[in-house]
Amino acid sequence: MPDTLILPAIPAVANPELQRALQHKIDHKTKPLGALGRLEALALRLGLIQQSLSPVITAPQIRVFAADHGLARHGVSAYPGEVTAQMVHNFLRGGAAINVFARQHGIALKVVDAGVNAHFEPHPALIDGKIRHGSRDALAEPAMSTDECRRALRFGMALVADMPGNLLLPGEMGIGNTSAASLLLARLGDLPLAQCTGRGTGLDEAGLARKTQILQRVLARHADASAPLDALAALGGLEIAMMAGALIQAASQRRILLLDGFIAGVALLVAERLAPGVRQYAVFAHRSAEPGHRHLLRLLDAAPLLDLDLRLGEGSGAALAYPLLQSACAFVNEMASFSEAGVSGDNHAAP
Amino acid sequence: MPDTLILPAIPAVANPELQRALQHKIDHKTKPLGALGRLEALALRLGLIQQSLSPVITAPQIRVFAADHGLARHGVSAYPGEVTAQMVHNFLRGGAAINVFARQHGIALKVVDAGVNAHFEPHPALIDGKIRHGSRDALAEPAMSTDECRRALRFGMALVADMPGNLLLPGEMGIGNTSAASLLLARLGDLPLAQCTGRGTGLDEAGLARKTQILQRVLARHADASAPLDALAALGGLEIAMMAGALIQAASQRRILLLDGFIAGVALLVAERLAPGVRQYAVFAHRSAEPGHRHLLRLLDAAPLLDLDLRLGEGSGAALAYPLLQSACAFVNEMASFSEAGVSGDNHAAP
Repeated sequence: MPDTLILPAIPAVANPELQRALQHKIDHKTKPLGALGRLEALALRLGLIQQSLSPVITAPQIRVFAADHGLARHGVSAYPGEVTAQMVHNFLRGGAAINVFARQHGIALKVVDAGVNAHFEPHPALIDGKIRHGSRDALAEPAMSTDECRRALRFGMALVADMPGNLLLPGEMGIGNTSAASLLLARLGDLPLAQCTGRGTGLDEAGLARKTQILQRVLARHADASAPLDALAALGGLEIAMMAGALIQAASQRRILLLDGFIAGVALLVAERLAPGVRQYAVFAHRSAEPGHRHLLRLLDAAPLLDLDLRLGEGSGAALAYPLLQSACAFVNEMASFSEAGVSGDNHAAP
Repeated sequence: MPDTLILPAIPAVANPELQRALQHKIDHKTKPLGALGRLEALALRLGLIQQSLSPVITAPQIRVFAADHGLARHGVSAYPGEVTAQMVHNFLRGGAAINVFARQHGIALKVVDAGVNAHFEPHPALIDGKIRHGSRDALAEPAMSTDECRRALRFGMALVADMPGNLLLPGEMGIGNTSAASLLLARLGDLPLAQCTGRGTGLDEAGLARKTQILQRVLARHADASAPLDALAALGGLEIAMMAGALIQAASQRRILLLDGFIAGVALLVAERLAPGVRQYAVFAHRSAEPGHRHLLRLLDAAPLLDLDLRLGEGSGAALAYPLLQSACAFVNEMASFSEAGVSGDNHAAP
């Protein structure tokens, strides 16, 4: 009997009655109709996610999923593989960009070792979810066995189940993980690999050509891996699999998912294919400078909040966009209505 | 002897040595070169404004400049003129969008009555700078006399001189003020009026046509008013004049100017024409949905941080962008360098 993966149900977000009531509330605030632009659409979405006329964010949580990649040995990144572990130490000491932005906004941060090729001592900010010391070399074999892939997904689900708060900001660190993300996007999105592949953290022209050639061979090697779980296992990324599990679980609990850039977006694509409906809970933080992100956003019908040429990962773009979600909640909950304020020209009272 | 306006000198921002040192500091942070995108350029600008390797923001201040407009009697706005005073009361009671965002980010807020057509009782958050009860009807005469215009500029300068903190977020409220801003942009930017005119807070097609026709007549009426001070007086906006004075004074003191949308941008254009160099201190918060803003941004060679279809004014877009300025300072001051963190692949040590 096969060891099947049990995925939670994803509740629907659509609620026409609540949507009308939210829109009415937004429209009667003391401002011209629609004058807060995309912040109004964001408030509406947060209200629907929480099924509430008064959306609020409580105890936001960053989880940075870290893993190494077997493919990295083929030189698909500008950085050596040991940087993954070094950056984990940097996260634990509080010196990385994501630490700075998390502190700025009072967001809790934990690092999840999904499969870093190093041993870590216990640390209060480190969650040990190591499946193996780096994924396998996808040029030679599936990046994960089916069992490893399921375990990564399950662990991702488990670590969110009792997480505090109602907002998950997933981040990632893994030298080589734009390669895994490009492969998954090409396969699950049925897109030409060239559209999905970019310079990652800083490859030059020759490096990009080499990366694309290697990734093309990987895709050919796993031509049969087209079902979501098979593609995820073959093309890999332990941190991407674990993040996808976390997204599925979080959506099943009606948490807001504040998506960072390319890698987190691919994890959402995987999650949506495994558990349709997860996408409804996603807010897209920023448009990454990584070229594949543009195609991914189109595939997911997503318009990100920020466009600042970020290409760092770690969840940094999500943390930078976070105050806009607070603002969206705040204006819905705190602004006076035309009648409360005694201001003329109520948007719907106007002739 | 003419009563000339004495304007302060604007110190230069350019400092190649400091710029190199700042860039070096940014480039050695634990991230791929340039991976924080436009946040890095922002950090560089803030450092140059403050002439410091460690830019910091202290005691940020919103000043909402409010005034009425003689032109409003011709129906150039979707809202009646009394809304200006009603919104001032809303600001003082804390119920407007700008109040909500100011509270969220801990930004101090004061309302400046530059010329509202109403009497206000004293209030701790209200600064009385009333020049007159609304500007004059620019279709019949200059919106301000030269003396009124100078007084508005001077008052704007004075109210900033001893203001705490190093960041000014100017906002505005004034039924009819997109008309004054469009007129000033057309005249000072030498642009066709149609490119500078939009729906403001919500005119329909016919309303926009009517507004454009009226503004065309105003421009013709004041065809000779081409020098900056003459144009400002003729085409008006008491709140725009006062805001321009505030921007000039703030820049002379090396304060950061976080510019809101169309109206605040036009005030900056006026300020820059009166006191060249003010522009160097400006950070542009967002791309407004008001069509003239696009042309204004091109004229000012400005790339705003946010693009969220906002068209509210009040300083709301500036307040929404404010956390990004904090983030820019924070990463420069708090992130570890490659050597501090023991991470391989220093951007400049790489082969």
